[in-house]
Amino acid sequence: MSLQTVKSYVIGLDLGGTNSVFGIVDSRGEIKATTAIKTRGFKNVNDYVKASVDALQPILDSVGGLSLIKAMGIGAPNGNYYKGTIEFAPNLEWAHDGIVPLANLFSQALGGLPVALTNDANAAALGEMTYGVARGMKNFIDITLGTGVGSGIVINGQMVYGCDGFAGELGHVTMVRGKEGRVCGCGRKGCLEAYCSATGVARTACEFLEKSDEDSLLRAINPENITSLEVSLAAAKGDKLAKSVYEFTGNMLGEACADFAAFCSPEAFVFFGGLTKAGDLLMRPLKRSYDEHVLKIFKGKAKFLVSNLDGSSAAVLGASAVGWEI
Amino acid sequence: MSLQTVKSYVIGLDLGGTNSVFGIVDSRGEIKATTAIKTRGFKNVNDYVKASVDALQPILDSVGGLSLIKAMGIGAPNGNYYKGTIEFAPNLEWAHDGIVPLANLFSQALGGLPVALTNDANAAALGEMTYGVARGMKNFIDITLGTGVGSGIVINGQMVYGCDGFAGELGHVTMVRGKEGRVCGCGRKGCLEAYCSATGVARTACEFLEKSDEDSLLRAINPENITSLEVSLAAAKGDKLAKSVYEFTGNMLGEACADFAAFCSPEAFVFFGGLTKAGDLLMRPLKRSYDEHVLKIFKGKAKFLVSNLDGSSAAVLGASAVGWEI
Repeated sequence: MSLQTVKSYVIGLDLGGTNSVFGIVDSRGEIKATTAIKTRGFKNVNDYVKASVDALQPILDSVGGLSLIKAMGIGAPNGNYYKGTIEFAPNLEWAHDGIVPLANLFSQALGGLPVALTNDANAAALGEMTYGVARGMKNFIDITLGTGVGSGIVINGQMVYGCDGFAGELGHVTMVRGKEGRVCGCGRKGCLEAYCSATGVARTACEFLEKSDEDSLLRAINPENITSLEVSLAAAKGDKLAKSVYEFTGNMLGEACADFAAFCSPEAFVFFGGLTKAGDLLMRPLKRSYDEHVLKIFKGKAKFLVSNLDGSSAAVLGASAVGWEI
Repeated sequence: MSLQTVKSYVIGLDLGGTNSVFGIVDSRGEIKATTAIKTRGFKNVNDYVKASVDALQPILDSVGGLSLIKAMGIGAPNGNYYKGTIEFAPNLEWAHDGIVPLANLFSQALGGLPVALTNDANAAALGEMTYGVARGMKNFIDITLGTGVGSGIVINGQMVYGCDGFAGELGHVTMVRGKEGRVCGCGRKGCLEAYCSATGVARTACEFLEKSDEDSLLRAINPENITSLEVSLAAAKGDKLAKSVYEFTGNMLGEACADFAAFCSPEAFVFFGGLTKAGDLLMRPLKRSYDEHVLKIFKGKAKFLVSNLDGSSAAVLGASAVGWEI
């Protein structure tokens, strides 16, 4: 046995637009202690880091202090892995108009602790690889189906960050070309995210309701208030129009995955996020469409998996996985 | 200095449907000796390997013998890197209905020499990384625009082979969805290859001629005999219809590359193959379309390069690069 202190834990920070959740995590993915602060309300990033470290202190003490911590991993919107920065993040008041060296600031505030940072979708993929259904896989694509569509790609056992640290934006491949494409939050048209996110599902439902006179449980709801959850609840009750919304969504996701297979022939596609709660409503048309559209040599090779990580802790686990990778 | 023999060379084999070209290559990409045999006319793969080794012997002797050879690399259609096999290659009579362990057979016939094999498009990418315009790059996509559209993808300095050895089939991402998509050689519809290969360009020209009454130099040619070369020659003479064919082709390639950037944010796209001879006719609309379609964070980051490897030796160099990678 070495006389060195065993570095048993990492800190994971799931940095969201509203809340910042910290967890101290061991190598098996057990969260030993957790705390949180609001992300908002700080006039600059230094105040945010100071408040974070103040909140961290008691949970660090509870596991035996900073000396047992190997590293810190951060999952954050617009996170640049190579530089450890958050760049022009529209939802973060202290990082919306510039480049914030968040990894460095945390490292300085935590006595030189190694700190790495990546975007939330990449953190989710690392979480699946370290603790989840992608454990042991060298080639897979993690797709987060939430308010938007995020993705993290692992090839040859490594995260794909690209030349600039921002690779893996599969929510923004173009599925409907030309003018008919739906406007996407990114300012372009026809992106996968505009159709296959939770908001995309709600938009599809509104479109389908408008285009047809078909009876539907969804007609009882003000179109502006329709959510993907209500569509899946209606579908579960046998509502035909609601079912066709998920058919449409799964079909498009399957076509997209067929293109992704041509790129990197993954061992699995792992799905995570709110939309996966629709279960077979989404997964059945997704797999059927994939089989229909994928190039023959790839047929039947990729698994389609749904994340088994607990939704509330998955983001912190993902962030902590970034720390283990250092 | 070590007393071991310095392994100064690799053998590169460009295995095509018609010819098999062998080169002995040094680490700087200089082809020291070359020979060739016909690929056809052998009743089985053992006869093919025997004829190959017989042809190799004199050029091996000319550089000092097998003891100076580090490895052999093969670029072949339907080549599986992981297994060293050629699988169901429609154009190879001794490999069209099965799985042929070609790397092993060559290794046995060459005294246990390490032999690696990959498909021709991946070999081209390795060639660019080892000797060409992608030297020193860790993230790039090599796109071969020939009779078909092939691709080799390098991420984090490694070839992307996927879970099965067949990744990097970007010629078969779907660009035109639904029934309007052109039938592709792979049996599916709307693939990039059906539009942006040399044959795709000829098909576009025929379509454009049929759809309009516009005057064009191409009307003097029997539509069945139109080739991409004739379209570019006509365009160079100012033919409007011919120019619009390349506009269409470049535009679609630019859209495809914008999607590829969302995947792996490459440092460069490298183009190779007959179609690149059209020069700016193709590259100008390609770059313009890419800028129009790519996600904002990737704008202006990727270089667009045309291979500087000599067409006739590039395939052998690419194959030899597979050998250096062992």
